[in-house]
Amino acid sequence: MTHEELFVATALQSWKLVTDRLDKQFAALSDEDLQKEIAPGKNRIYYLLGHLVGVHDRLIALLGLGERLHPELDDQFLTNPDRTLPDAVSAADLRKALREVNARLYAAFEKLPAEDWLKRHESVSEEDFAKEPLRNRFAVLLSRTGHAAFHSGQIRLVAKG
Amino acid sequence: MTHEELFVATALQSWKLVTDRLDKQFAALSDEDLQKEIAPGKNRIYYLLGHLVGVHDRLIALLGLGERLHPELDDQFLTNPDRTLPDAVSAADLRKALREVNARLYAAFEKLPAEDWLKRHESVSEEDFAKEPLRNRFAVLLSRTGHAAFHSGQIRLVAKG
Repeated sequence: MTHEELFVATALQSWKLVTDRLDKQFAALSDEDLQKEIAPGKNRIYYLLGHLVGVHDRLIALLGLGERLHPELDDQFLTNPDRTLPDAVSAADLRKALREVNARLYAAFEKLPAEDWLKRHESVSEEDFAKEPLRNRFAVLLSRTGHAAFHSGQIRLVAKG
Repeated sequence: MTHEELFVATALQSWKLVTDRLDKQFAALSDEDLQKEIAPGKNRIYYLLGHLVGVHDRLIALLGLGERLHPELDDQFLTNPDRTLPDAVSAADLRKALREVNARLYAAFEKLPAEDWLKRHESVSEEDFAKEPLRNRFAVLLSRTGHAAFHSGQIRLVAKG
């Protein structure tokens, strides 16, 4: 591997560790458990599950990897806070969507040539990117890995089972 | 910047974002607030503050950046769970220690040549590293950024002020 490839492989390993841990956390919780709040008065796990699907789904488009799969979840899980809208999606469907989206992302991540990670992402203009080269795809990957870890810490607070 | 330098600068920016957010979270909490639990029966913020100092302090040695500053905190904040030992360190001292340790780390991070991030960290042998090149310093940086984000998500659950 080249040095560039090593940097990317290391970051993908970090993404994989965090998303696999989340998978395990969700797998250890029943659909009933998903209705629990992470702390009194805070988001339900159900909401965080949908929120993570939405954020990762948007990542497909943001990184220029193709069309996103689940724009229909935005209203419930990205635009509005928990319990604003009725629970329109079943826990089973959300679990399936997270697996699909993460699998789609990871397959695309593995195919992306190392140097392409340093190119701009879709929400920064060419002009701005010329001035701020750190607004690249790699930054988005690290940011979303951190986002997943942030919520993983919250989900950890709910007793398993 | 070379491509190698861009990968490193992007990851350091990510570390900085997460640790600065934690700084702001701690700054918004009074010493009294630090005694609150992140959720009923879970760690106090006070413990997480000491825990983060300890983990970041160990990073100095793990990355081969010199001697760590606060090994005396290990017993209370790394080896033992919250409320096992008496609160031997004041909140003010912990706040100061976190600032010191993070400043020391970041100064060393900025000086480290990009390619050195791909070298092995101190807890992997040369022999193992030859087989597993992703057990490098960069992996440790990303892992500890994720660790900080994990606890940041928990601290967010405590109302500010």
